[in-house]
Amino acid sequence: MYDRIKGFRDFYPEEMGARRETIDTLEGTARRYGFREIGTPALERAEIWTDKSGDDIVEELYAFEDQGGRHVTMVPELTPTVARLVVAKQQALSKPIKWFSTRPFWRYEQVQQGRQREFYQTNVDIFGSSEPEADAEILAWAADALTSLGLTGEHFDFRISHRDILGGLFEEYAAETAGDAADDIDVEAGIRAVDKSEKVDRAEYLRLLENAGLTGDQAEEFASLIERNDLDAVLAHTDAERVTEAVSNLQNVLAAAEDFGAREYCTVSLDTARGLDYYTGVVFECFDSTGEVSRSIFGGGRYDDLIESYGGQPTPAVGVAPGYATLSLLCQRAGVWPDEELATEYYVLQVGDTRPTASRITRELRAAGHVVESDVAGRSFGAQMNYADSINAETVVIVGEQDLANDEVTIKDMGSGDQVTAPVDDFPGERERPSIDDFE
Amino acid sequence: MYDRIKGFRDFYPEEMGARRETIDTLEGTARRYGFREIGTPALERAEIWTDKSGDDIVEELYAFEDQGGRHVTMVPELTPTVARLVVAKQQALSKPIKWFSTRPFWRYEQVQQGRQREFYQTNVDIFGSSEPEADAEILAWAADALTSLGLTGEHFDFRISHRDILGGLFEEYAAETAGDAADDIDVEAGIRAVDKSEKVDRAEYLRLLENAGLTGDQAEEFASLIERNDLDAVLAHTDAERVTEAVSNLQNVLAAAEDFGAREYCTVSLDTARGLDYYTGVVFECFDSTGEVSRSIFGGGRYDDLIESYGGQPTPAVGVAPGYATLSLLCQRAGVWPDEELATEYYVLQVGDTRPTASRITRELRAAGHVVESDVAGRSFGAQMNYADSINAETVVIVGEQDLANDEVTIKDMGSGDQVTAPVDDFPGERERPSIDDFE
Repeated sequence: MYDRIKGFRDFYPEEMGARRETIDTLEGTARRYGFREIGTPALERAEIWTDKSGDDIVEELYAFEDQGGRHVTMVPELTPTVARLVVAKQQALSKPIKWFSTRPFWRYEQVQQGRQREFYQTNVDIFGSSEPEADAEILAWAADALTSLGLTGEHFDFRISHRDILGGLFEEYAAETAGDAADDIDVEAGIRAVDKSEKVDRAEYLRLLENAGLTGDQAEEFASLIERNDLDAVLAHTDAERVTEAVSNLQNVLAAAEDFGAREYCTVSLDTARGLDYYTGVVFECFDSTGEVSRSIFGGGRYDDLIESYGGQPTPAVGVAPGYATLSLLCQRAGVWPDEELATEYYVLQVGDTRPTASRITRELRAAGHVVESDVAGRSFGAQMNYADSINAETVVIVGEQDLANDEVTIKDMGSGDQVTAPVDDFPGERERPSIDDFE
Repeated sequence: MYDRIKGFRDFYPEEMGARRETIDTLEGTARRYGFREIGTPALERAEIWTDKSGDDIVEELYAFEDQGGRHVTMVPELTPTVARLVVAKQQALSKPIKWFSTRPFWRYEQVQQGRQREFYQTNVDIFGSSEPEADAEILAWAADALTSLGLTGEHFDFRISHRDILGGLFEEYAAETAGDAADDIDVEAGIRAVDKSEKVDRAEYLRLLENAGLTGDQAEEFASLIERNDLDAVLAHTDAERVTEAVSNLQNVLAAAEDFGAREYCTVSLDTARGLDYYTGVVFECFDSTGEVSRSIFGGGRYDDLIESYGGQPTPAVGVAPGYATLSLLCQRAGVWPDEELATEYYVLQVGDTRPTASRITRELRAAGHVVESDVAGRSFGAQMNYADSINAETVVIVGEQDLANDEVTIKDMGSGDQVTAPVDDFPGERERPSIDDFE
């Protein structure tokens, strides 16, 4: 027997059931917000990623040449595909466009806990609105989805910031710096330094800031300001327009989030930068409040330039993409991960030549919406009872030749072990969910 | 803007909604039968397919070498993966194993109507039972799923046979034939000839049978017998054990299908062979009864040797795998394809600075389970009304500054255009689905 490929997981029914329940909760919440499902392909042209230089994703692509000579890749992220869909029907689509989808993505990464090479995300995005309400609706959806899973503010925290606060502060340092040295300030390197600040010690963090072009004093001042996580302190430090506008936008998003019920889950966190360079406005990351799951659970934010960079019309956009590998770690840690158990309402057990009646009962119980199994393997009474137990059947309906001679069936409650007889012609009857209580 | 890859489709919300409804119906039916969902990877080792010779699938693989030097392929069919899952937990799994999953597969084929290179199927299989009830349960699930979509016996037909009827008849011709000529009878070629009989004229069909080793008289006799689709005629023709056992098994499956409610959709059709060579017992194909969709909608059957051929323990198996490309053609032809329209219960329209109240109403309506949108783009009254119309909002709740001054909101029914005012503090209140009727 061959083996499975590293980083690609199998899901057996018990675990898949818990996973499906989680996905259904996120998707159901998205539907109630008016996000609409789209379906997208597994493959896109590899050039979409390889034509852009400097992107880490290129190193991680499952790219190859197909039998028609096309350079293709298994899709590592949804945005370019969504950009294509938006552009193809730009005129026909009502704005804002609110889309979601749950699907796998593939990246050749180091496999570790919470990170596989095949991973599922639910992408939720709004295209065509630059208003703070759009950012806040994304936050509200994420908070609503997590609380619908049973999580509370005790369990998770959205650390939120705005990319232009960091960007604007760096710009200002560049403006302060005389002559050629100004050109040495590398804003993106600075943002990456902040992004790493929690993972390195303070000396290393300051060194990274200096590498990005700040002087030692500037680095110290900047680090201290960011650590305070205080928007008023930022406004007191500078009146640079880019920074003040960013602070104002972030405050507006938080005010809308208050109306939308999500403010209580948000903490201003100025070192939240998101590693990816494409974010342009508000950014946020969801963390385990206890820190027990140390990695970010998921993140999101505003990316107003990205659709255009893939050849689309300029289209403001904001979104979030929870992945199930890390989300399940959080849910398990918080004790709200669904039970990994099969659930079965009825097992209809056949003894002797009773298939016509057992089948009639099975069909009627299924038509009422229940999960019902019956024998398809010619098993004995004992083997059927063991099987019913293995699938956690709540009620077993025993259809035996002897009972049938008396126009009866036996109803057994598997929890208590109690059983009663019921008239076969009156079972299940019009009852929504017949149990032994109906016949005692 | 780059283009999408040939044979890979995008699904926008309207079409995706209809598709999702269809998938949900098939999966919901499978759940009620006690089939359990599994999750499986997009990639497997290419050797699984390339080590077997003579399989058409090899020509159609999206295979490549990954960055770790593994020869991998995007999965073209589910069985090898399922075999791996069964074998890995052979001891722990209760038999019979009843699994389903909906996922994409990939084959580099000629693109045509109802056939893309990326295609979705719902695989439904039973492992570990060789009893006719297992075959019948697969038929019953398929019939139940199709009728749950709104299809009836007027729309579809399961053409059913047993592979050993053809195989046994060919074997008998070989036994009748003296000497070396017997070795020239190629059973698989004969079955492939039958499989093609509907696509070629009779002379060509007879020629294919002769190529498979039959004499002219034998070919004529065989073709006439198969055309009658009459199991009694087959039994009158031969008492070869392989054939009589196959007929008996098919009759037992049909008798079980009668009890399970699926017999009425089945027609004995001896030329149904299924192209794939791995079937070992009952085989069936679903066709459009009117023939308007000329291709088989989907097929299934028993494949008792396949799990073992992939390195597993000998495990009897029977299954079916409806694909959505052809199924949607049938549903459209029959007029039961779901409306490709967005559905929205409420749009909460903001006029002026009313966000706190509009948000409160939006949240309460969503908490009651409704699909509700509100403004996230700072739009005018008219633009919001147009948007509400574009998403087919049934009811618009207008939250205006002037109304709010009177502690009222306006409820507008988008179907009739009628509108009424409602007390803001009493909206939505405890009502399950408030409408203008509640306030007239």
